[in-house]
Amino acid sequence: MRLRNKPWAAPLIAAHPEYILTRPQNMPGHWQARFDAVRPLYLEVGSGKGQFIIAMAQQHPERNFIALEIQDVAIAYILRKQVELGLPNLQLLLGDGAELTEYFAPGEVTGVFLNFSDPWPKTKHEKRRLTYQTFLDQYKAIMQVGGTLQFKTDNQGFFEYSLVSMNNYGMHFDLVALDLHHDPRVVDNVETEYEHKFSSQGGRIYELVARFDIVTPAQ
Amino acid sequence: MRLRNKPWAAPLIAAHPEYILTRPQNMPGHWQARFDAVRPLYLEVGSGKGQFIIAMAQQHPERNFIALEIQDVAIAYILRKQVELGLPNLQLLLGDGAELTEYFAPGEVTGVFLNFSDPWPKTKHEKRRLTYQTFLDQYKAIMQVGGTLQFKTDNQGFFEYSLVSMNNYGMHFDLVALDLHHDPRVVDNVETEYEHKFSSQGGRIYELVARFDIVTPAQ
Repeated sequence: MRLRNKPWAAPLIAAHPEYILTRPQNMPGHWQARFDAVRPLYLEVGSGKGQFIIAMAQQHPERNFIALEIQDVAIAYILRKQVELGLPNLQLLLGDGAELTEYFAPGEVTGVFLNFSDPWPKTKHEKRRLTYQTFLDQYKAIMQVGGTLQFKTDNQGFFEYSLVSMNNYGMHFDLVALDLHHDPRVVDNVETEYEHKFSSQGGRIYELVARFDIVTPAQ
Repeated sequence: MRLRNKPWAAPLIAAHPEYILTRPQNMPGHWQARFDAVRPLYLEVGSGKGQFIIAMAQQHPERNFIALEIQDVAIAYILRKQVELGLPNLQLLLGDGAELTEYFAPGEVTGVFLNFSDPWPKTKHEKRRLTYQTFLDQYKAIMQVGGTLQFKTDNQGFFEYSLVSMNNYGMHFDLVALDLHHDPRVVDNVETEYEHKFSSQGGRIYELVARFDIVTPAQ
């Protein structure tokens, strides 16, 4: 959702280049240098106010995380929390999910999260959905072989569309959950702000975990 | 579901070889001769009491249909209706869905329907589910290139499993409906007995339409 402008957002972003980059030109292949240690790198495309990615960074110190968000006000909320928390494994990126190959090198990212992105329900807006094939091209281009894409939504039509789109793209499904918050297989779900509110009102949350490649586990 | 035995079932089946065959040995490649005309052949695996396949045969005189059912009492119900109706495009087959390649030749079947089959929810019974890979092998072996598999269930866990199973098998999804009876895209749904009862009580019906092959439509 579009947030109201906040006068503190732009100055905060300008004041913290150690935590946030804005549409960077020369970062592909160099993201690990932004963290205090090299760890598998996970990217959330469309982080909103960041509840998910901050909780993930806190719960998984063995991974590095990047919160990508196109709205400066939204990412300023994440930045405000990060200035307070100083998580060594979280970096912010103000940029466009359609330009991932300009920010990341092939294979640089281990996993991608898509959480409650805009469903763009009108057919004429199909190309804007984050599970449309041109976006899948972007994820595939930057992810390492065997890396997983985890997609959550509360929108039934968007989930139906995404199942077909990712299947038709040739992706391999690892998990489909049609009622995530009542699924006995899922024990470590981390909620977004929106997810918590929607689910507490009785709405269903859908999840798909999928890969671009099938990798046989090493013996 | 298992039906109570009916004393009239076996004699009825024995009396109507023109409509029903029992585990036939020499039918592969010869099914069209059982109908009054050659038409695209559609198979329902697990027809129950036959409401779906009879309605389909009535609504689609341009197709031939086979009702496959493993329970003799269930198929006797279908036969009783067929003796009354005399539909020229409906044949019955008392047999096992795990033995399709013993009944049909490669490419003989245009489409397969799976309607509300037993979900076999326990993991140890996975191999009995009609969307387990060995059953998919059977469907693929008898279907023509580009033919579609239409799968309906009310069981959420079975649908989740089947989405993953058919995706992992390499099948191409044409349609996913997570609430079939309220889906504006689906205008010609034919209900089974069970489906009508379950849905009228407010339950969700799930549908997946998928193919083993991607076929580009002719110009």
